[in-house]
Amino acid sequence: MSTDPIYAELTTRLRHNHLLDSVGQLLGWDEQVNLPAGSAGFRAEQQAALAKTQHEAASHPRLGAMLGELETQAGRLGPDEATVIRQARKDYDRATRLPEEFVRERALQSSRGYHAWAKARAENNFAAFVPVLEKNLELVKREAGYLGWAGREYDYMIDLHDPGMSAAVIAGLFAELRAGLVPLVRQIAASPVRPRADLLRGFPVEGQRAFLREVTEKLGFDYGRGRIDVSLHPFCSGTGADIRMTTRFNPDEPLDSLFSSIHETGHGLYEQGLPAVHYGTALGMNAGMGVHESQSRLWENQVGRSRGFWKFFEPRFRELFPQQTAGVSAEELYLAINAVAPTLIRVDADEVTYNLHIILRFEIEQRLFAGTLAVRDLPAAWNAAARELLGLTPDSDRTGVLQDVHWSYGAFGYFPSYCLGNMMAAQLWHRALALRPELEADFARGDFSWLLDWLRREVHVAGRRHEMPELVRRVTGEALSPQALLRYLHGRYGVLYPA
Amino acid sequence: MSTDPIYAELTTRLRHNHLLDSVGQLLGWDEQVNLPAGSAGFRAEQQAALAKTQHEAASHPRLGAMLGELETQAGRLGPDEATVIRQARKDYDRATRLPEEFVRERALQSSRGYHAWAKARAENNFAAFVPVLEKNLELVKREAGYLGWAGREYDYMIDLHDPGMSAAVIAGLFAELRAGLVPLVRQIAASPVRPRADLLRGFPVEGQRAFLREVTEKLGFDYGRGRIDVSLHPFCSGTGADIRMTTRFNPDEPLDSLFSSIHETGHGLYEQGLPAVHYGTALGMNAGMGVHESQSRLWENQVGRSRGFWKFFEPRFRELFPQQTAGVSAEELYLAINAVAPTLIRVDADEVTYNLHIILRFEIEQRLFAGTLAVRDLPAAWNAAARELLGLTPDSDRTGVLQDVHWSYGAFGYFPSYCLGNMMAAQLWHRALALRPELEADFARGDFSWLLDWLRREVHVAGRRHEMPELVRRVTGEALSPQALLRYLHGRYGVLYPA
Repeated sequence: MSTDPIYAELTTRLRHNHLLDSVGQLLGWDEQVNLPAGSAGFRAEQQAALAKTQHEAASHPRLGAMLGELETQAGRLGPDEATVIRQARKDYDRATRLPEEFVRERALQSSRGYHAWAKARAENNFAAFVPVLEKNLELVKREAGYLGWAGREYDYMIDLHDPGMSAAVIAGLFAELRAGLVPLVRQIAASPVRPRADLLRGFPVEGQRAFLREVTEKLGFDYGRGRIDVSLHPFCSGTGADIRMTTRFNPDEPLDSLFSSIHETGHGLYEQGLPAVHYGTALGMNAGMGVHESQSRLWENQVGRSRGFWKFFEPRFRELFPQQTAGVSAEELYLAINAVAPTLIRVDADEVTYNLHIILRFEIEQRLFAGTLAVRDLPAAWNAAARELLGLTPDSDRTGVLQDVHWSYGAFGYFPSYCLGNMMAAQLWHRALALRPELEADFARGDFSWLLDWLRREVHVAGRRHEMPELVRRVTGEALSPQALLRYLHGRYGVLYPA
Repeated sequence: MSTDPIYAELTTRLRHNHLLDSVGQLLGWDEQVNLPAGSAGFRAEQQAALAKTQHEAASHPRLGAMLGELETQAGRLGPDEATVIRQARKDYDRATRLPEEFVRERALQSSRGYHAWAKARAENNFAAFVPVLEKNLELVKREAGYLGWAGREYDYMIDLHDPGMSAAVIAGLFAELRAGLVPLVRQIAASPVRPRADLLRGFPVEGQRAFLREVTEKLGFDYGRGRIDVSLHPFCSGTGADIRMTTRFNPDEPLDSLFSSIHETGHGLYEQGLPAVHYGTALGMNAGMGVHESQSRLWENQVGRSRGFWKFFEPRFRELFPQQTAGVSAEELYLAINAVAPTLIRVDADEVTYNLHIILRFEIEQRLFAGTLAVRDLPAAWNAAARELLGLTPDSDRTGVLQDVHWSYGAFGYFPSYCLGNMMAAQLWHRALALRPELEADFARGDFSWLLDWLRREVHVAGRRHEMPELVRRVTGEALSPQALLRYLHGRYGVLYPA
């Protein structure tokens, strides 16, 4: 590590900024988990006051001066230092180059947009949402322009979530994935095998809570530096030094809280594996949303829905819920865990069809940014794509183009990460099995340590040193590709749902 | 309210500072209630980062400039504005007049002091604690000097907790209280009536939780803007916009969690009654620790231990705990609720003898600050006072001079507030009964609204407009005095524990 005094001052400031950001995250967690309903207005004031100090810290002139200084002597510093400086510059520019007036307008529009969306969805009135969405697109384009991405606005949005990724690269990957996936989904939809939707009912919350705690602990989550609570929508926040995960419980959906908890545990394990000494710099930062999703999806799907995993946990599951599982065979349970059925709603989708929901959104976002699709023509485009990809036609915009909240506050370029994460997860899984063929046998004995150790070593400790494609190449020896995902999905679901 | 633009800017800044402070309080609450053990180091870093921004905000030069400006035109502004400016000046001076080096030294010493105290207490080794305590005294005196209180150092510490109060005034009040109290304690100690310590055992936590929730809600705590959780030591934090109370549960001490919760509810009701629009200024600020304690003690003792209160709640208590209360008569229960027995340990003391513990500490602090008692002679002075006041001799310094944590981190002048609060509570109670003689009959019907409404109107909405003595005079028509407390204690406990 460099002993340059300016570099040392830079990392001290970045850590300070990170600490303030982490306080903001804690406020956000508390809002979802603890906040009394009548305290929401005050919490908004607290967040705004903190955001003001965060912005002052992130845009402090001294930061700019140090970065300018360090950039002129890049040769004297090592590659790690260069990575840190590059990321710090990116963040500093984002904090300083957007005019104050623009930031205010964006914040206002984001809040307005959310309410307009909620109303439009409730009333199934897409026309009312059109001007909002047009405004959001315009704002995002202006933002890209301020930051030097004019003419590459969609790439700007993608890079925001997955540094180094671009629409062109994603388009190639998704086309390949789509070609391989649509036939599989057709096969599953036509298969005589159907999971029973009403199989798992009446699971007491306390038992569910105990089970998911045992599972996530066994997977390696360190509850000495984290916790899990209840919120309306599951999420994972905080840094590895203090991870706050959430889940939700429904007696008739025991797999929902279990798998969402395993998913968040995957996020949590990643954060817990980042080097704490580097918090605030790129070396202590996750590599982006796609990589983050690769971790959550790997634990949720490749691990959590595997036969090895259930060989170990099924007896305990039956022990905790003897009546509820009495009439359920092992194979029926496994099929329920791996239920696949096309649905119109993304958040209800299974591991296989989820990718098609993402491809649909990506293709539409591309056309919106390219100007080849007008906002007012979105419903027709959406419905046509849903028919083509999922074989289903929305009965209204509520179950179609109005189903997601993201666009209402300008979060374009966010959806692709989910699918990129699935690809990377499958590639990691493939590589892990090549290195350790007995991996599922380990799971069957309740031993998940090899996989976690390997991910720690290969993915987590690297922080943001490598962009996603480079990271995949380093860890798996292969380029980022949908082939491993297709192989994995065919291998698991093609067999479970024969034609 | 003034329309002066500088005054408006001042209050905006003060609110911003208050919001940052409230975020710090939330971090503190979270630390006691939620924080995973392994996350303590990171939390300390978060607190330090936030404290840095809090200090920058509280010592911002613009604040000083505005105060200077406003102070020259005091005549043009109203009395409320003058109050706000006076308090803001006090806070600004405290934020700016202490040299950075001194603040660092004090923080370091405070942390060292805590650990030295914990070790000295564990080893019953007061000698090892002597240099720490000497250093703490020296630091506190230096601090008073920086802020213009040289020669009146103990008054400085008292004013810090109870603005406008002084050692001389307290000495007079406490001498009067002591004279009336010691005979009552002697009488109770000699009384044939003795509460049964083992009466209430095996109360399930869930029932306790339900009962205290019903009680505190009935008293008027607004759970729409607050909550109660579990921590090692009960406390109340936050502002009225979002109050976070805590309690603790022990199946064999159901009255402990109940009364500590009612106590914290008293604090919470006060904060919930402060005018939210004035948060950050003296008009939206509590009037000091003594007044705060007057609210918690009033609800805990005068209300919560009254016959009227139990007439209403006893049936519900028995309904929730039928087995546990089966062999307990109404009078036995009431005696357990109002158990009095001298003890060496302040935190275990009852409502009557608690005051003597405070008087003991106040008299010792006075002598320490006056230089008439050397730190090394503390144990002898403590033990003599304990014999005289409580009729008990500590068997070691652990149950004597080393029992409290406060001095280890320099919190002198803090203890008197508890006793001042008891006095004020009794005066408020006396006045309330004069205005509404049927108050206990209201309680017996489960109606506590008159008292809360009256406190809201007379105490809460005033914020920090009046110092404690003035506030007492305005609300009760009498000077702050121990006579109401003595009358109340004799009336309740002199009767319960006849000679």
